[in-house]
Amino acid sequence: MSRAADLVRRATERGLTVGTAESLTGGALAAEIVSVAGASACFAGAVVSYTHEVKERILGVPHALLEERGAVDPDVATAMARGARQRLGVDWAVSTTGVAGPEPHDGHAVGTVFVGISGPGGERSERLDLHGDRAQIRRATVERAIDMLATQISFPANA
Amino acid sequence: MSRAADLVRRATERGLTVGTAESLTGGALAAEIVSVAGASACFAGAVVSYTHEVKERILGVPHALLEERGAVDPDVATAMARGARQRLGVDWAVSTTGVAGPEPHDGHAVGTVFVGISGPGGERSERLDLHGDRAQIRRATVERAIDMLATQISFPANA
Repeated sequence: MSRAADLVRRATERGLTVGTAESLTGGALAAEIVSVAGASACFAGAVVSYTHEVKERILGVPHALLEERGAVDPDVATAMARGARQRLGVDWAVSTTGVAGPEPHDGHAVGTVFVGISGPGGERSERLDLHGDRAQIRRATVERAIDMLATQISFPANA
Repeated sequence: MSRAADLVRRATERGLTVGTAESLTGGALAAEIVSVAGASACFAGAVVSYTHEVKERILGVPHALLEERGAVDPDVATAMARGARQRLGVDWAVSTTGVAGPEPHDGHAVGTVFVGISGPGGERSERLDLHGDRAQIRRATVERAIDMLATQISFPANA
């Protein structure tokens, strides 16, 4: 069973809905979940916020936070997940923000990624330091985000 | 040059911003655009609205329209593109809605897809009748949506 299929199974068994907020993955995380037949039982949607403006306008990430820290930040990741949870109306949301490359961004090395989680058990973010080209960094981010969300849904008190 | 790279080149040359609203493609259309290095010059973001609720809440598709016709409809496709254009604050938005399968949905055969476009030149939708499995129908929808948006950006008066 693929990671995404495992996530869909866990969420559906528990009657939980999920969604995503994506910067560097650009929709690939949502597309991976939707590739599972039966994903509609738990997956509501996603906000791909590639610009600061969309992070603010749709996800409600505070302007001052983005101005001060830039988008590659643990608190921005958490705020993106929180905003997606509220705007999509889902139980759990997972977010991605980071540097896919090929160039460093805002002083962060290529491969610096934060994944955020928000749900009824709380919210948190995790830093990843990934290696590879753009496609590999995105792919690894998608896999890690799906694993984090699947684990969180199964053990919500650990958020 | 890939279809997505051609779209990014055309939009960037004209100083235009683009975004997507996706139902059956589930983020794969946005991810395809973002796979192009330099996409950030024109791509702002996407709303993946897999449920009716997200189509209404974020994209502003009228509740009555969804109730009456369901999501696989030319006017829903146009409304999704219009909503994405407004919510993402972009010049041009493209939308996808349809039946990826494996089962028919709301009386529509597998492969029935509508792609919508909204921009300063106007708005319209196009019906596709695609063949294949879920992945093939999604892939063909992504390719056609990218072609439509690229053409529209180059010849906006034809919307």
